[in-house]
Amino acid sequence: FKPEVFWVTHAGDEKLERRLALRPTSETAFYQMYSLWIESWRDLPLKLYQSVSVYRYEKTTRPFIRGREFLWIEAHDAFRTHGEALEQVKEDMENSRKVIWEKLGIPFLFLKRPKWDKFAGAEDTYAADTLLPDGRVLQISSTHDLGQRFAKAFEITFVDKDGERKYVWQTCYGPGIWRIVAALISIHGDDKGLVLPFEVAPIQVVIIPIYYKPEEKNAVLGKCREIEGILRSKGLRVHIDDREEKTPGWKFNDWELKGVPIRIEIGRKEIESGMLTLFRRDTRRREKVPEDKLYNRIMELSREILENLKARAKEFFESNIVDVDSREELIEAIEKRKIVRMRFCGREECAENMREATNGAKVRGTPLNWDGKIDGVCAWCGEKAKELVYVAKAY
Amino acid sequence: FKPEVFWVTHAGDEKLERRLALRPTSETAFYQMYSLWIESWRDLPLKLYQSVSVYRYEKTTRPFIRGREFLWIEAHDAFRTHGEALEQVKEDMENSRKVIWEKLGIPFLFLKRPKWDKFAGAEDTYAADTLLPDGRVLQISSTHDLGQRFAKAFEITFVDKDGERKYVWQTCYGPGIWRIVAALISIHGDDKGLVLPFEVAPIQVVIIPIYYKPEEKNAVLGKCREIEGILRSKGLRVHIDDREEKTPGWKFNDWELKGVPIRIEIGRKEIESGMLTLFRRDTRRREKVPEDKLYNRIMELSREILENLKARAKEFFESNIVDVDSREELIEAIEKRKIVRMRFCGREECAENMREATNGAKVRGTPLNWDGKIDGVCAWCGEKAKELVYVAKAY
Repeated sequence: FKPEVFWVTHAGDEKLERRLALRPTSETAFYQMYSLWIESWRDLPLKLYQSVSVYRYEKTTRPFIRGREFLWIEAHDAFRTHGEALEQVKEDMENSRKVIWEKLGIPFLFLKRPKWDKFAGAEDTYAADTLLPDGRVLQISSTHDLGQRFAKAFEITFVDKDGERKYVWQTCYGPGIWRIVAALISIHGDDKGLVLPFEVAPIQVVIIPIYYKPEEKNAVLGKCREIEGILRSKGLRVHIDDREEKTPGWKFNDWELKGVPIRIEIGRKEIESGMLTLFRRDTRRREKVPEDKLYNRIMELSREILENLKARAKEFFESNIVDVDSREELIEAIEKRKIVRMRFCGREECAENMREATNGAKVRGTPLNWDGKIDGVCAWCGEKAKELVYVAKAY
Repeated sequence: FKPEVFWVTHAGDEKLERRLALRPTSETAFYQMYSLWIESWRDLPLKLYQSVSVYRYEKTTRPFIRGREFLWIEAHDAFRTHGEALEQVKEDMENSRKVIWEKLGIPFLFLKRPKWDKFAGAEDTYAADTLLPDGRVLQISSTHDLGQRFAKAFEITFVDKDGERKYVWQTCYGPGIWRIVAALISIHGDDKGLVLPFEVAPIQVVIIPIYYKPEEKNAVLGKCREIEGILRSKGLRVHIDDREEKTPGWKFNDWELKGVPIRIEIGRKEIESGMLTLFRRDTRRREKVPEDKLYNRIMELSREILENLKARAKEFFESNIVDVDSREELIEAIEKRKIVRMRFCGREECAENMREATNGAKVRGTPLNWDGKIDGVCAWCGEKAKELVYVAKAY
């Protein structure tokens, strides 16, 4: 990280005796302590994490995706054996899948990065790439098999069951909170604004009272509050927009912009008929629901919305992955902002040539579910293929 | 904050064109945005907060209480009227009371700081001081009436209902998360280690299996897991310490050190009698509880533990506040590490003299519940008293 480290040299009017580095990541801070804390096999595994701001001097900031300060989670784990460390790497990936795909509906590929694009100090880096609507992939999570490199550098040893002193095996894991949120916003959002899955929406249901005559106001607002009370008592995050100075239509747009998954519209007609009007943000469709079925229908909708967002996002993601067999196909696919899947010779030099010819597309790595067998030739150089890789422009 | 600002001057090998300041607090960042976001009275009140690391170059760091980087919550609010802003200050204090005193059992005084010890830019600063066991007070929360000073500096204006453009009224509030945790640890802890209130303990109940013969092991562990399952299903945070290589006595000490509020000991005797052994960390007393009364007794204990911690802490706090009427009494009380309450002339010069004569005791401010009436003379200089103040050495 040396080119990206910010250096603090002064405090107030004083020059500091020793300059201080702002952490770009925290291996050095953690592992210095680990060498003190870990003594015997009984102290293992040791698994700790922090969520804290880190700082990197990136030439170009990407508002919304990453600034020069960003918040993430960094988990640092130490194990007795390499096998246990590799199990942790798998668990990290599974946790990413459960949250980023299952709960947030953001599709991604978990790839093993090429050796020239590993995290410094890692034996292997595995990272999740999603695809933003503009056709660039974004790394949203990564997990590293650190082997014993840091253990040796920081003297992190333990006395094993057999009485021998050994180096620990380490992993570290970093889900990029800000980048995940950026992906959530840009992948599910539409031209009307934000679209949020029900479970993570700060406001899950907004209630809009609709009345045009003053004499309707009390009845309508009363019904709105009754419905709010019922839904809140069941644990939902509900808001009534009772602003007097705004029209219902203005409020509809305002809450759609903010991505509230479900809107309930309540006016005189709804009160008289006992049928409330529901609007779902993702499809922008209205439906009528009997009042006594309201909660159940909302819970059904919450699942339908997530399934719909997942299906849409998956369709977009998968339809943008293309297989190529030649330079021409590769260049054309990258120009069309696709993720390319291709046979590859495995050489860094070839990756570098591809990057230049495509104005920046990078070899992102090999798929995890790939069985390791491959025939044929590198789509770029025509030499014998050694691996299957994904290639894309990236943030 | 100028003397405490860290300056970033380099990144990687480059000298930055403009040096960057590490935020010691975030008024400038927030209020620049507020001047863009606030347009009309409809945008008010605007209440936002962040919890993020801030950095101050303090000459002496206090491991545990405050380093040069610390995490807190900073809330920044803007209002239409001064009255609303003052209401917010009261609400901030009430929120501090609810969490710091009611839930965590940390007693404190909310004081209006003397004018020479206000937050820079504030009209008035109100701060919570608790007393650590070594006889020094620690500020754990503060809230500021900013008046319109920042509004004028940052041009934060709004069009009011009457069509006129006006400056907003602002407040900011900072509960010191790390300092509150430091107070929690040092005030409730004892010579055996940490003591935690039940509600905030990461592990609320630890179960220790007790068996000496191999043939008892299965039955004892089985019962432990059964009890764990019952308590977990009711939402408690329970841990079974089934480490084979440690004795029950070693485990008792280990979990007492870590402050786990309640321990359940389960051995052959407990299984045969159906009476489980409970141990509470705060009083270090054991009791027997019939298995079917276990959950109810734990919930009772959770309240008894908090009440006991609050009573002990309050007794310590209040017994260390003394009234003084003369220089000699003041100096003696400060030497005995007390918080002094005294009549005071209100002059900064007098406060400065007291600080020198006592090797550092400071006027911390006037009590909020004080009715503002006072007779008699300043305990320090003998001139007419104008206020009632608290004086103490502080972190």
